[in-house]
Amino acid sequence: MTMNKTVPSDIEIAQRAAMQPIADIGNRIGLHEDDLELYGKYKAKIGFNAINRIKTSQEGKLILVTSINPTPAGEGKSTVTVGLGDALKKLGKKTMIAMREPSLGPVMGVKGGATGGGYAQVLPMEDINLHFTGDIHAITSANNALAALIDNHIHQGNELNIDPRRIIWKRVMDINDRALRNIVIGLGGPVQGVPREDGFDITVASEIMAVLCLAADLDDLKRRLSLIVVGYNYDKEPVTVGELRVEGALTLLLKDALKPNLVQTIEHTPALVHGGPFANIAHGCNSVMATKTALKLADYVVTEAGFGADLGAEKFLNIKGRAIEKNPDAVVIVATIRALKMHGGQEKKNLTVENTQALEEGLGNLKKHIETIQSFNLPFVVAINRFHTDTADEIELLSNWCNMHQIPYGLTEVWGKGSDGGKDLALEVLKAIESIHSFTPLYSLTDSLKEKMNKIAVNVYGAKEVAFTSKAEKQIQQFEKFGWGSLPVCMAKTQYSLSDDASLLGRPEDFTIQIRELIPKLGAGFIVALTGSVMTMPGLPKEPAALNMDVSKDGKAEGLF
Amino acid sequence: MTMNKTVPSDIEIAQRAAMQPIADIGNRIGLHEDDLELYGKYKAKIGFNAINRIKTSQEGKLILVTSINPTPAGEGKSTVTVGLGDALKKLGKKTMIAMREPSLGPVMGVKGGATGGGYAQVLPMEDINLHFTGDIHAITSANNALAALIDNHIHQGNELNIDPRRIIWKRVMDINDRALRNIVIGLGGPVQGVPREDGFDITVASEIMAVLCLAADLDDLKRRLSLIVVGYNYDKEPVTVGELRVEGALTLLLKDALKPNLVQTIEHTPALVHGGPFANIAHGCNSVMATKTALKLADYVVTEAGFGADLGAEKFLNIKGRAIEKNPDAVVIVATIRALKMHGGQEKKNLTVENTQALEEGLGNLKKHIETIQSFNLPFVVAINRFHTDTADEIELLSNWCNMHQIPYGLTEVWGKGSDGGKDLALEVLKAIESIHSFTPLYSLTDSLKEKMNKIAVNVYGAKEVAFTSKAEKQIQQFEKFGWGSLPVCMAKTQYSLSDDASLLGRPEDFTIQIRELIPKLGAGFIVALTGSVMTMPGLPKEPAALNMDVSKDGKAEGLF
Repeated sequence: MTMNKTVPSDIEIAQRAAMQPIADIGNRIGLHEDDLELYGKYKAKIGFNAINRIKTSQEGKLILVTSINPTPAGEGKSTVTVGLGDALKKLGKKTMIAMREPSLGPVMGVKGGATGGGYAQVLPMEDINLHFTGDIHAITSANNALAALIDNHIHQGNELNIDPRRIIWKRVMDINDRALRNIVIGLGGPVQGVPREDGFDITVASEIMAVLCLAADLDDLKRRLSLIVVGYNYDKEPVTVGELRVEGALTLLLKDALKPNLVQTIEHTPALVHGGPFANIAHGCNSVMATKTALKLADYVVTEAGFGADLGAEKFLNIKGRAIEKNPDAVVIVATIRALKMHGGQEKKNLTVENTQALEEGLGNLKKHIETIQSFNLPFVVAINRFHTDTADEIELLSNWCNMHQIPYGLTEVWGKGSDGGKDLALEVLKAIESIHSFTPLYSLTDSLKEKMNKIAVNVYGAKEVAFTSKAEKQIQQFEKFGWGSLPVCMAKTQYSLSDDASLLGRPEDFTIQIRELIPKLGAGFIVALTGSVMTMPGLPKEPAALNMDVSKDGKAEGLF
Repeated sequence: MTMNKTVPSDIEIAQRAAMQPIADIGNRIGLHEDDLELYGKYKAKIGFNAINRIKTSQEGKLILVTSINPTPAGEGKSTVTVGLGDALKKLGKKTMIAMREPSLGPVMGVKGGATGGGYAQVLPMEDINLHFTGDIHAITSANNALAALIDNHIHQGNELNIDPRRIIWKRVMDINDRALRNIVIGLGGPVQGVPREDGFDITVASEIMAVLCLAADLDDLKRRLSLIVVGYNYDKEPVTVGELRVEGALTLLLKDALKPNLVQTIEHTPALVHGGPFANIAHGCNSVMATKTALKLADYVVTEAGFGADLGAEKFLNIKGRAIEKNPDAVVIVATIRALKMHGGQEKKNLTVENTQALEEGLGNLKKHIETIQSFNLPFVVAINRFHTDTADEIELLSNWCNMHQIPYGLTEVWGKGSDGGKDLALEVLKAIESIHSFTPLYSLTDSLKEKMNKIAVNVYGAKEVAFTSKAEKQIQQFEKFGWGSLPVCMAKTQYSLSDDASLLGRPEDFTIQIRELIPKLGAGFIVALTGSVMTMPGLPKEPAALNMDVSKDGKAEGLF
């Protein structure tokens, strides 16, 4: 987050904020003490009994926060999500927030953070950014227990005839560790296992993260886990977790991680922070459990999707929407003037310089995402997330443009002002929710895999066409033969561009999307389509954030920001 | 644990037991609600404020539970530890238990378990055996963050001139995974890091586990972390965590893990279950934080050391005793008739058959451990942990033998009867505590490394002599040059025999202990001496326990035992 001189750092604000006991927060949304499993005073998991009890409650309205294609200038999607929730609460609405939990890896490297910023944060920010309630550790354990069980199966006789060269299940770690991307394991002779090529992904890229986030309940979690394809046998037939007979053990490792985590914002708005899958090789939203639970407990639920609308919102609407059997009642598209200027060609180092021309050119990116949301026939509001470097002329240009195109918009200053800075946006969102609309899906599950990819690329990205490598062509045939053709497609594409070329900012046109390779994620229930190489294990920078971290004498975190 | 027909399985007993809220348990030992950080209703961490507040309280009596050399017959040391604590409480003594937390790896493989058994268990057993309060996950994170930071340092220019062939810091995972014992990392070209040989240990073998268990407080934790030697530079000089400047980040990752975990036994005796280092390449006891805290809160503290007295008790007395600045007020040496029969040559499949001759021959093993404890000039009691297959003649033989040698002993049946089965032992222990004694240390820190190893091998193991490989000779010279000669030595030896040959049961004589190699553990504050190869990453068996695990409809664990 870019910092404003008049506002202290995120961690300073977070540590100064007075939290309320999470039991009190829970109580105000109808959760009894016995419904909560406390993790300290300010974090709790919601138990399965409570979730079962509220199953018949009416569902609230769902507000999805998405954005333009992210740039290094920062858009502040999480900050707007939190601030909008706080603003709706301030307007007297019974509101909850549902968002993703951050991965430890980036925290130690270059802090990304998914807890908002400034005066629009979820708390306790240090805990959420470190081990939180252990969900990601549980996923690491389950993922790696499965990996060990696969290699052990081969070592102990390989009854399932697994081809060690065709194992697609990788180990994971919640650390940015480039040295683990490509490794050789099982060395040292016959008692040390079977040598083969392998690699580690970061934990949030594990299919188990996606499974946990899409599971409706414990049974569904186990069912999904058993469907996971870990590789192929020597006959090139898929081998599943169910065939290894370990879905029970994996479910046992994940049973607590499946329960949504209740925390609060600085303004004491209840927030469920739960699950955090990648938004390229996975669908990029917080858990179904969290969203469903929030909808049962509140009248308004603000949630966010990963990256820009081309990746995050598309997957929310085509994948998560099917899992929760609900579509958003309104969509918020976050943009900043800084980021739009980058889409219009302004360099990062010059972002503080007024440049209405770059801003105008960058609006194409926003326009495309608006058209996408319109094509789903959903009401929307553009949130213009203000930075103190925005000039009056730039804001006027953007306002005029919205007015000219009859685009509903709200200025937000939640980062510096909390809910007071989100009131305009909240009122616009409430207006949007009242509008009459009926959701139009982009594709039907009965469409072929190719048709699905084509519709996403042409309608959402604005591509001219889709091209397939011969490998992808072969896989499509194979996957349809295995009966996987009716699954949704999860596109893995750069988040920085509407195209598959990260350097094409703004609104590129006349481009082709190339599908390089497919990966089956049967547990998650989608087929991943890779367009270019996707980094699933980040590396650390030359000066990792870890070098500045410490603990104060009284046990407080230092160096998180 | 071998099961008795009249007693249900451990998990059945555990799940039927009615726990009391942990806040109530804490309250009875003088801890206020604010002193506890709850993890659900039945687990809590004790906060640093409370630990500081009780620092000036008087310390209770410390009872160390150790055993003969373990055999596949089972000795039940943890069970006796829990049962003795319950029995002391029943006698009206203000009692606490301090013990290790189990590793998830063996739980998924062949269940070992460190939560006791039968009616002498700490609860909630499923949680403690699975993720508990996340301590081990935090250690995994810190260990692997350090590994990633080392490889990143080399990749980003290697300012410290680290020799990638001489890195001794390994990655860890809390999973039994033989395929990770020997690996090659950093493959795939220049952007993927620097290729080198590496390997994974199980998390409990991480030096960070030993550091966490020996740290006196947060400051001491950071100090110890900074001293860790991760490898050597091209000039063969040691490179430390302090030089990498990441001790602050590691402390941050470990700050909550350092707080002791409060749970309860089936009979509601308060127990601190915290930390669980290996007892071969580390010292094998629960944390200093837990033992010190228990001593401040209770009049009697029952704690256990790892493996047999040759490894666990020796290290407790020479390493942990120095860290807590206290020696036990009494030692309990656990033996079973079954195990003694194995030491006397009886095969495992015939253990249910009466064999007084094997029993008599096996007593040599017990005798040696008694002599060891006597050489430290500590009062002791032998705990004869009864199994239902023990015959009256066998028990009589053992009782007579104890009486003849004036060995104080107590029969225990805590597994089947809880505290009622531990009363005799408890009374004997109270008597022992009252006896006059003054601790005699085995060695002085100013002894040379060789003298220390010699005293341990000759006096504790009963060896004739110690031999050193040329590698070990060279390392001893080098380590003394680095100024590491005044550290205690932590012997890594097979737990199954007093010698370094696992097949020599009973009381072997006239043997030589060979020191193969040394490993510096400067953070833990000891030098590990390897006698033979020590397995630091277990493998899974042909039928892993994981295959029988599941979660019931109402979210309860199944298949833990």
